[in-house]
Amino acid sequence: MAVRAAVAGASGYAGGEVLRLLLAHPEVEIGALTGNSNAGQRLGALQPHLLPLADRVLQETTAEVLAGHDVVFLALPHGQSAAVAEQLGPDVLVVDMGADFRLKDAADWEKFYGSAHAGTWPYGLPELPGARAALEGSKRIAVPGCYPTAATLALFPAYAAGIAENEAVIVAASGTSGAGKAPKTHLLGSEVMGSMSPYGVGGGHRHTPEMIQNLGGVAGEQVSVSFTPTLAPMSRGILATCSAKARAGVTAESVRAAYEKAYADEPFVHLLPEGQWPATASVHGSNAVSVQVAYDEAAGRIIAISAIDNLTKGTAGGAVQSMNIALGLPESTGLTTIGVAP
Amino acid sequence: MAVRAAVAGASGYAGGEVLRLLLAHPEVEIGALTGNSNAGQRLGALQPHLLPLADRVLQETTAEVLAGHDVVFLALPHGQSAAVAEQLGPDVLVVDMGADFRLKDAADWEKFYGSAHAGTWPYGLPELPGARAALEGSKRIAVPGCYPTAATLALFPAYAAGIAENEAVIVAASGTSGAGKAPKTHLLGSEVMGSMSPYGVGGGHRHTPEMIQNLGGVAGEQVSVSFTPTLAPMSRGILATCSAKARAGVTAESVRAAYEKAYADEPFVHLLPEGQWPATASVHGSNAVSVQVAYDEAAGRIIAISAIDNLTKGTAGGAVQSMNIALGLPESTGLTTIGVAP
Amino acid sequence: MAVRAAVAGASGYAGGEVLRLLLAHPEVEIGALTGNSNAGQRLGALQPHLLPLADRVLQETTAEVLAGHDVVFLALPHGQSAAVAEQLGPDVLVVDMGADFRLKDAADWEKFYGSAHAGTWPYGLPELPGARAALEGSKRIAVPGCYPTAATLALFPAYAAGIAENEAVIVAASGTSGAGKAPKTHLLGSEVMGSMSPYGVGGGHRHTPEMIQNLGGVAGEQVSVSFTPTLAPMSRGILATCSAKARAGVTAESVRAAYEKAYADEPFVHLLPEGQWPATASVHGSNAVSVQVAYDEAAGRIIAISAIDNLTKGTAGGAVQSMNIALGLPESTGLTTIGVAP
Amino acid sequence: MAVRAAVAGASGYAGGEVLRLLLAHPEVEIGALTGNSNAGQRLGALQPHLLPLADRVLQETTAEVLAGHDVVFLALPHGQSAAVAEQLGPDVLVVDMGADFRLKDAADWEKFYGSAHAGTWPYGLPELPGARAALEGSKRIAVPGCYPTAATLALFPAYAAGIAENEAVIVAASGTSGAGKAPKTHLLGSEVMGSMSPYGVGGGHRHTPEMIQNLGGVAGEQVSVSFTPTLAPMSRGILATCSAKARAGVTAESVRAAYEKAYADEPFVHLLPEGQWPATASVHGSNAVSVQVAYDEAAGRIIAISAIDNLTKGTAGGAVQSMNIALGLPESTGLTTIGVAP
Repeated sequence: MAVRAAVAGASGYAGGEVLRLLLAHPEVEIGALTGNSNAGQRLGALQPHLLPLADRVLQETTAEVLAGHDVVFLALPHGQSAAVAEQLGPDVLVVDMGADFRLKDAADWEKFYGSAHAGTWPYGLPELPGARAALEGSKRIAVPGCYPTAATLALFPAYAAGIAENEAVIVAASGTSGAGKAPKTHLLGSEVMGSMSPYGVGGGHRHTPEMIQNLGGVAGEQVSVSFTPTLAPMSRGILATCSAKARAGVTAESVRAAYEKAYADEPFVHLLPEGQWPATASVHGSNAVSVQVAYDEAAGRIIAISAIDNLTKGTAGGAVQSMNIALGLPESTGLTTIGVAP
Repeated sequence: MAVRAAVAGASGYAGGEVLRLLLAHPEVEIGALTGNSNAGQRLGALQPHLLPLADRVLQETTAEVLAGHDVVFLALPHGQSAAVAEQLGPDVLVVDMGADFRLKDAADWEKFYGSAHAGTWPYGLPELPGARAALEGSKRIAVPGCYPTAATLALFPAYAAGIAENEAVIVAASGTSGAGKAPKTHLLGSEVMGSMSPYGVGGGHRHTPEMIQNLGGVAGEQVSVSFTPTLAPMSRGILATCSAKARAGVTAESVRAAYEKAYADEPFVHLLPEGQWPATASVHGSNAVSVQVAYDEAAGRIIAISAIDNLTKGTAGGAVQSMNIALGLPESTGLTTIGVAP
Repeated sequence: MAVRAAVAGASGYAGGEVLRLLLAHPEVEIGALTGNSNAGQRLGALQPHLLPLADRVLQETTAEVLAGHDVVFLALPHGQSAAVAEQLGPDVLVVDMGADFRLKDAADWEKFYGSAHAGTWPYGLPELPGARAALEGSKRIAVPGCYPTAATLALFPAYAAGIAENEAVIVAASGTSGAGKAPKTHLLGSEVMGSMSPYGVGGGHRHTPEMIQNLGGVAGEQVSVSFTPTLAPMSRGILATCSAKARAGVTAESVRAAYEKAYADEPFVHLLPEGQWPATASVHGSNAVSVQVAYDEAAGRIIAISAIDNLTKGTAGGAVQSMNIALGLPESTGLTTIGVAP
Repeated sequence: MAVRAAVAGASGYAGGEVLRLLLAHPEVEIGALTGNSNAGQRLGALQPHLLPLADRVLQETTAEVLAGHDVVFLALPHGQSAAVAEQLGPDVLVVDMGADFRLKDAADWEKFYGSAHAGTWPYGLPELPGARAALEGSKRIAVPGCYPTAATLALFPAYAAGIAENEAVIVAASGTSGAGKAPKTHLLGSEVMGSMSPYGVGGGHRHTPEMIQNLGGVAGEQVSVSFTPTLAPMSRGILATCSAKARAGVTAESVRAAYEKAYADEPFVHLLPEGQWPATASVHGSNAVSVQVAYDEAAGRIIAISAIDNLTKGTAGGAVQSMNIALGLPESTGLTTIGVAP
């Protein structure tokens, strides 16, 4: 019997991507699709790449419309998920692709998001130690942020192996879809094509506390994170260039071994052969994560780099992967590690 | 029992795309992969987006290596398919993604390709009247060129309905993957980003006689085609802007009716609702064709525009679609109409 | 003594470009800069590429602010220029980069722009026969649209020489800056990168009557124009692919001769050597126009292609060139034919 | 009397850019242009954006051809400058845009470039303390690498003010023109559009020792540098995201003060107002450097970010700026701080 799924926020990029993936998911049947300002419009006009759903019409995001589904994906602006979630009942699997339930520290939440902390749900990054157990059978999933997904998967093996000092420097380049579909001047094609620019510099980005939470959790101690996001002239993809000072005694071999151990059995994380480096194009549209690591002996740093598709593994693919675990389905159901390139 | 498929020329863009699609095809098992200069290399280094095949090693393109398969896809430089094909025997389904067997007119072939005409195979554009019948059960398929696919699907309904004069003007913009993977200065990212440029102007492009053949075949008379290809700053996609003088008595309604009739039952061609226009992003990675048509009464012309992914419907997707027909499988097996956007 | 210039609408793309050019103009001193919603803001925040003006603050667009200048450039939304212009007095040179005073036919204006026709000013396309004489000493200049500039310069020599039939087909690709700086979803980088799409198909684009006016004026008879604009994934540039049926007796030589004659003495139009084709990258940031022409004997059509920078020669550069003529300065003062490439 | 300049390597990106700038330089007259494989070809075919030089023909790179000029710019592959330079005589100003004479440490040179160290010339980064004095009147100039220019200008003020620990982490994104014009598969437009990828990770990039040399020279002690270059989908531009651990007692105010002091009088370096961040688009085609700095108190790091045009300030603009100093001309002659945007 098919799993019946609704998507709240179906007109945006995260909503569109989860629909793209659910259309290819053999166990899922797509139910209600909702928007707010777009309610009443054909999906064909809003998401013309989703041809099989072209004639579906968006409804309002209400508890009534979302009722009667096995799974509800929330692709809503940050801060709006809690109010919807609490109306859905404890038996529905609610997968929040917003930030509302990611952070454990209420003070961090309030500092970075400016509203009351709604709580903490099982964290939808299955590769993180302990995460799968928390997801199994859960009725609530907090999908990680796209940057934390990329940065955590690049760096946590070094912390798990105890080879990195607790100061990480992360510089990540993201495609513009990470900034959403609401029209803003600085996101116009004319502005972004041919240009790289940083934003949220100096600790100000909302994803910083999430990275600290993830890496510190693995390290078992506080990890300081310097995070600089940059906007790159491409629609999709995140390249996270991460580094941390190596602990005494670290060698190129011990670094490699740490990553081979961490990713030996992961279906979606691909540790590249030595000498080959990730490129976001290789994971375009796929749920795969390309990771490579090197030990820069002269600088005494471990350099770990990951490439993901921000909308797939970074948002909707991670959501579907976690849903599969929560529902007891094989983790890779409906997901691919094949990118669309060139 | 799985269909066993080999791909000759697996390191290029057409070869990589057919592999991407075959990996998702439920009836196909991927057999030998061959290259020439790249023989002996891991596919993971050449096509890093095809993770499930990363450890496969390319072999030389020989009859021995290609033997023992049910289907052989040829993704070879123009003019090299005939020599390989004749060694493969009449029982193997040979799908040529090169130009060698597309043209019926030997003189045209020799004029545009400069070598002896090898023959004519059933033409792999199922939507063209009569094409499916020729493909069913065939052991040989000539996959159309990417531009002819886009232009023919934009314009043939007008000729089939007898509403267009026999003079077509076609201006098409293609992503750079259409120009192949061999490194050339004018195809460098530095040269193509931020730039539009035409080439092969004035009838000189090899795809012109193929368009004339297709449209003339439908019209039942010689159709003159002015074709200008342009290179656009994107990796994939063709937007074909086509027009023809309308015959006397044509109205907006008769134009619309001609297209609705032609595409009522086609699984991959989507005639957009009135007022919506195709965009190549909507068909990125998909086998769908977006088509729209308008009648410009003041200029007296029918304007028909199509968008395809040049590598998918324009090459490898069209090849798989035709293979399905030849093998008696449902035509859409393993193919999608869902694009990867944004 | 310096020419003192004000720019109304200095926060948009046309306004920014005219400032970029005026900063390099040896005879011009930049006076008042105005905006509307942006009044009170530093130009450094709005146009960060104009470093020498970073500390200038935008004022409101009023007659008082614009008073006391020798030249006023209007970079306003279509339909707003007339009200400002009439307050400026007959002794000020007013250069309108909007559409308000381009069309001679009031009915055309009203059909395409939906408001009352304000009048017709001397047309700022100096290369058009008769245009320079009208511009000399004029106090009013209507700067052409970007598409009409590209298309007219590609095709008028064929009409001037009487070698083309009066039916032109024009397909042009434009960078996104042509669509302006107001934030709209379909212009987001995420939407336009990797995508080509048409718009205003079937005679609906406002630039069509302007092309008809220009080509018909040269031909001395009505010329029918089928015009399809497309949006290309680049910030700047227009590539106009134009064609017209050749009149009887036309040869490749007579076509070439017509263009060599038309452009023998033009400082900004460069007829490329035979076999070389225009690319928008070559004219990025320059006032040059690259033109090439071919005679497609099989199709019986003259194919003429031009590349311009839509913001420079297509808007602000054409404006400065015409200003130079009106003021009696050497026509090329402050303008360059050197592009920024790659 | 004009300065007569020759350019060796005029067909590549660095050569083309220096010609673009010299064409706008009021004191320079362009003399011989040489290539090697391209000798005998028209510059119009190789550098179509340089219209005023379209009919110039490239000569072979020989001492005879380069003789009789006041300045010779060498835009040659690394390791080829020394042989040419020694034939030019001590009275000619030789400006090497290659790497040959940048490094002081012969062992570093040999490790990273694999050939004998040719020597060390005055370093063409005028903003670096002491650099201008060494350039004045010099007949030899080693133009810095593009990445070292960006990274040094982002970070040296922190070292000059003694506020940063001697461990810097630099992650830089470069446009593809930095990788040159020789055709390579991984630089094809199809490969780079839509993709970010790192290379030369782990200390392996040739520009690392140059950064160490620059920052260590200012700091007065050894500075460790972890440098990761990434390739971005744009033709031009470098965004360098740099950070260093702050020394004890550092505050946001002391960081800002260090940068204001360093750049108070620099004509080309623009320290942005607080809250505004650099974008490469703003310096496209200009010799300006946009710099911003922040103190991330939580992470204890100074974050300094610069944006340059890799071909202008990063190569040819820096070369012309240094030439001006060497010749006793005003430093900004022929150079602009106005970018071509959007």
